[in-house]
Amino acid sequence: MPTLITLTTDFGDTAPYVAAMKGVLLSLNPDVQLVDLSHRIRPQDLRHADYFLSTSIPYFPRETIHVAVIDPGVGGERHALLVEVGGHFLLGPDNGLFTSTIRALGGPVSAYRLDQPRYWRSDVSATFHGRDLFAPVAAHLARGVPPEELGTSLAEWVTLPSRSAVCWQNICQGEIAFIDDFGNIITNIPQGQIQSLPVRVSMNGGPAAAVRWVRTYSDARPGELICLFSSENYFEIAEVQGNAARRLQAEVGMMIQLEFG
Amino acid sequence: MPTLITLTTDFGDTAPYVAAMKGVLLSLNPDVQLVDLSHRIRPQDLRHADYFLSTSIPYFPRETIHVAVIDPGVGGERHALLVEVGGHFLLGPDNGLFTSTIRALGGPVSAYRLDQPRYWRSDVSATFHGRDLFAPVAAHLARGVPPEELGTSLAEWVTLPSRSAVCWQNICQGEIAFIDDFGNIITNIPQGQIQSLPVRVSMNGGPAAAVRWVRTYSDARPGELICLFSSENYFEIAEVQGNAARRLQAEVGMMIQLEFG
Amino acid sequence: MPTLITLTTDFGDTAPYVAAMKGVLLSLNPDVQLVDLSHRIRPQDLRHADYFLSTSIPYFPRETIHVAVIDPGVGGERHALLVEVGGHFLLGPDNGLFTSTIRALGGPVSAYRLDQPRYWRSDVSATFHGRDLFAPVAAHLARGVPPEELGTSLAEWVTLPSRSAVCWQNICQGEIAFIDDFGNIITNIPQGQIQSLPVRVSMNGGPAAAVRWVRTYSDARPGELICLFSSENYFEIAEVQGNAARRLQAEVGMMIQLEFG
Repeated sequence: MPTLITLTTDFGDTAPYVAAMKGVLLSLNPDVQLVDLSHRIRPQDLRHADYFLSTSIPYFPRETIHVAVIDPGVGGERHALLVEVGGHFLLGPDNGLFTSTIRALGGPVSAYRLDQPRYWRSDVSATFHGRDLFAPVAAHLARGVPPEELGTSLAEWVTLPSRSAVCWQNICQGEIAFIDDFGNIITNIPQGQIQSLPVRVSMNGGPAAAVRWVRTYSDARPGELICLFSSENYFEIAEVQGNAARRLQAEVGMMIQLEFG
Repeated sequence: MPTLITLTTDFGDTAPYVAAMKGVLLSLNPDVQLVDLSHRIRPQDLRHADYFLSTSIPYFPRETIHVAVIDPGVGGERHALLVEVGGHFLLGPDNGLFTSTIRALGGPVSAYRLDQPRYWRSDVSATFHGRDLFAPVAAHLARGVPPEELGTSLAEWVTLPSRSAVCWQNICQGEIAFIDDFGNIITNIPQGQIQSLPVRVSMNGGPAAAVRWVRTYSDARPGELICLFSSENYFEIAEVQGNAARRLQAEVGMMIQLEFG
Repeated sequence: MPTLITLTTDFGDTAPYVAAMKGVLLSLNPDVQLVDLSHRIRPQDLRHADYFLSTSIPYFPRETIHVAVIDPGVGGERHALLVEVGGHFLLGPDNGLFTSTIRALGGPVSAYRLDQPRYWRSDVSATFHGRDLFAPVAAHLARGVPPEELGTSLAEWVTLPSRSAVCWQNICQGEIAFIDDFGNIITNIPQGQIQSLPVRVSMNGGPAAAVRWVRTYSDARPGELICLFSSENYFEIAEVQGNAARRLQAEVGMMIQLEFG
């Protein structure tokens, strides 16, 4: 069966950039199976990329090659990175976008700085490494070229600063990790740290308001603000048949405090 | 050749939900060929889903597995449904989203309530059955597990209320079934019921205005409001190189009345 | 390995049109591999289509079949076109959308007017040739039906008016060819005609302002307006971590003048 290569970018659908990457990949290796994850990562938003990748890549089979190009530093001093972790291959700029994915996949990590131009397109532009470097390297990797030939072993790579939720007594403090297209607000406060008691929520230091616990959306009336655990088991606020994020003017990165009891 | 599995959701492109479903599918069955239909069904809009699916699924070959997850009642009391009709397999929540598709495909219908957790992910979240239930069941179905093993035969399933157009004398009354990205207004009034006479159109009980018949868009001047038959053979109103829906403030579900002669 | 068929349209994601085309293609030829390029070409924007296709199709392997449906004249007098150029196959309306692609691919061109209804769907709608004509012809072409059987040789086809940049002394005049989702402004002024001297830029006859040359985005501070060469080697204006097009109120087609020295 063909090697799977997934593609994640912030290139959008009106520009030809994703299409050009697909062309380069299929020209060098027509046997791969391309899988689009998303090309609508918010432009140059590494935190969005990090959240997106870490909550989707772990569901893929081992041996999959994941190419992610959210690359504000393209052509500059940042390295081009190949990471092998838990049997998965991650290819992208060394700017931290795989931070949470590497943690989620677990297991020993081998990282490489991609520095072997013989596996790139012959003319590498300063602004489009997705097409000229990452796509060709992915195609060669899928053909069986070993990582050690594609680059030089790296002991360190860039990691996004970690912001863990903290809990003490009847309080948890965390932040908004993600807002989906339904307006559901997903925090970084894990289910394991939460007491199943009545909860009051405040955002960005504002007043605290009681929010009702439910198991799933359909346990509440349309328009009601509720809380539950996300499909990744984190504290989530939602409005049934509404948009909680718009209603609460919530944004990714905002501080969330929970008071239990 | 690999089994085709199509995917239709309202998950959008910024959330990792579609990507996670693809990962689960390919992990359980790397031999399938995934085909994206759309992930931009309007959030929780069952009528949009019903229209979309019924005007695309019939073009696919038999044996295709169609997974559709527009699921406002996820985790609640609604069943998870598998329907076999006319040789096609439909997988999704039992909330009516396949109503028109089942009618369009025709032929005998076998329906199953998916109630065999051994074919699901081991830990099913209350909010994401696309990843935890429908994707794994689709993967097992594609491997050849028969429907009777995946669920229990069902005699009834949820059907969206039908709203047919009615015609008498020189009048037809129907409603707006769909508005596409060009602003073309597609109604539920079928070609077969329509007289090829001059027509006056009124919307939502407003004043009637004459609209000119054309065979195709290029038969009219830019900016002219015209009517014709849609590619599915229903009465359609369009504005050449414009947006008829915006101009007429049309919305899906609005009443349309046609007066002929 | 299966034949590649790429799909490019302006149909968007809420309408069932792309899904219907995929169904028709896979029904007639289940062995093809479909590759989405974009379905978000701006509605009926032939210049956008022309730019998009000409900067992505050349990266694909020979023998690929490229179907592009941006078709304001559907059902009217325009021909349906098949072009074979440089080993690639282009299928779409004869309205000029392949103008720059044919030039970019180079080599001898064979063009055909698709006029053999036995290779179409039996009931061709006047408004949806993507589903009823181009998809079936692509499926048959992928099965090995030769172009001469699908249509009649054509000596001429529609070409969009060419607008080349002109340079004299220390001045270059061109226009904005494309604006991507990052707001980067890409012109039609090729790198080869440009002097590596300080440059002053004016748009649409407005006042000229000095813009600093950089090699890549990360060579500048956030918010700085810069110029560089695009990944296709044309003059480009960008704002680091900003949106140059919004800042300069730039639009595709606007005149750009560069003064060097």
